Amino acid sequence: MVGRLSVYLRQLESLLDEGTARVSSSRLAELSAVKATQLRKDLSHFGSFGVRGLGYEISELAAEIKAILGLDRKWNAVLFGAGSLGHALAGYRGFARHNIEIRAILDSDSRKIGKRVANIVVEDVARIDDVRKSTGAQIAVVAVPALAAPELAERIVKAGFRGIVNFAPVRLRLPPDVVLYSVDLATAFENVTFRFRNAPA
Amino acid sequence: MVGRLSVYLRQLESLLDEGTARVSSSRLAELSAVKATQLRKDLSHFGSFGVRGLGYEISELAAEIKAILGLDRKWNAVLFGAGSLGHALAGYRGFARHNIEIRAILDSDSRKIGKRVANIVVEDVARIDDVRKSTGAQIAVVAVPALAAPELAERIVKAGFRGIVNFAPVRLRLPPDVVLYSVDLATAFENVTFRFRNAPA
Repeated sequence: MVGRLSVYLRQLESLLDEGTARVSSSRLAELSAVKATQLRKDLSHFGSFGVRGLGYEISELAAEIKAILGLDRKWNAVLFGAGSLGHALAGYRGFARHNIEIRAILDSDSRKIGKRVANIVVEDVARIDDVRKSTGAQIAVVAVPALAAPELAERIVKAGFRGIVNFAPVRLRLPPDVVLYSVDLATAFENVTFRFRNAPA
Repeated sequence: MVGRLSVYLRQLESLLDEGTARVSSSRLAELSAVKATQLRKDLSHFGSFGVRGLGYEISELAAEIKAILGLDRKWNAVLFGAGSLGHALAGYRGFARHNIEIRAILDSDSRKIGKRVANIVVEDVARIDDVRKSTGAQIAVVAVPALAAPELAERIVKAGFRGIVNFAPVRLRLPPDVVLYSVDLATAFENVTFRFRNAPA
């Protein structure tokens, strides 16, 4: 459901970029590769947006979905890991558009501490408690090797972060009050190979 | 649907890692954060797996889902872009588990060409046609800056790739016979901020 809302938002933003002001539910569903009935059902959970026959006002619907997704306010995040994935995430342009700001980068490697990544000086992970407090960050982004992630996750929880976005290819076990979302970069490939496998020859 | 199959597979692999041999549909649904009726419906599309009262044999179900997702054979891929994201992807351990092999890395930056990334020598993107043929790769992985991606995508299609996994934060327009999946790394954050926003205070 959140995944579909994200897709609708992405499509609405593309339409806005193209200068389009209104979109029908069937067109938005088509762009999002979902059934129109599914789209209307998803959006109806959050109150009524569209006007029959006129479709949705795009900027209004996009703003509503952003609010639903919690993107109508700024989120401060701390990035753990200044390796290649950390570099990629620190420089990722998509975050700013989603009101997510990487406020600090922590690593345990003395060769990385003190260096700049995306204009942020990498700090020692030993400073985790101070950094969490000074940044007011609620979200931790884990971009460390799989072996290091479970122990780091415990420290992150102890330091008071409320949510973890985990890019390490390992399963983390966290207390139920900490929100966890693990990203598996290989899933993208499954989407493509599935369609190859099931395409007409 | 593919997304849910990927999630089921991930959970099944975790259970296998833990030495578990069978799982009930309700337990697998719970681990996958979907309704048990949804899971049973998804799996029923592809024939009947589970035995009532005994649940699913995990290794068998995992193998079936892998086949459905096209992961029962090897896929050769070429990675475009040897920047930080390219480095991260080239070294990503999750691909091997999914039978995806990065066979070559191409870039247009002369400072990167000739360097090694994850033990592969970066080649000039001008060699795209030769590299596609020699590797037999069908999948192109795009990890170049957003501005460079649309033109690159055209060259990728011309070179004969059948699918693109796009990590550049830009919308690509491709012929309908080319399979495209775009990864938005910010979507992971929406999943977390959505749950913050909608959690009991």
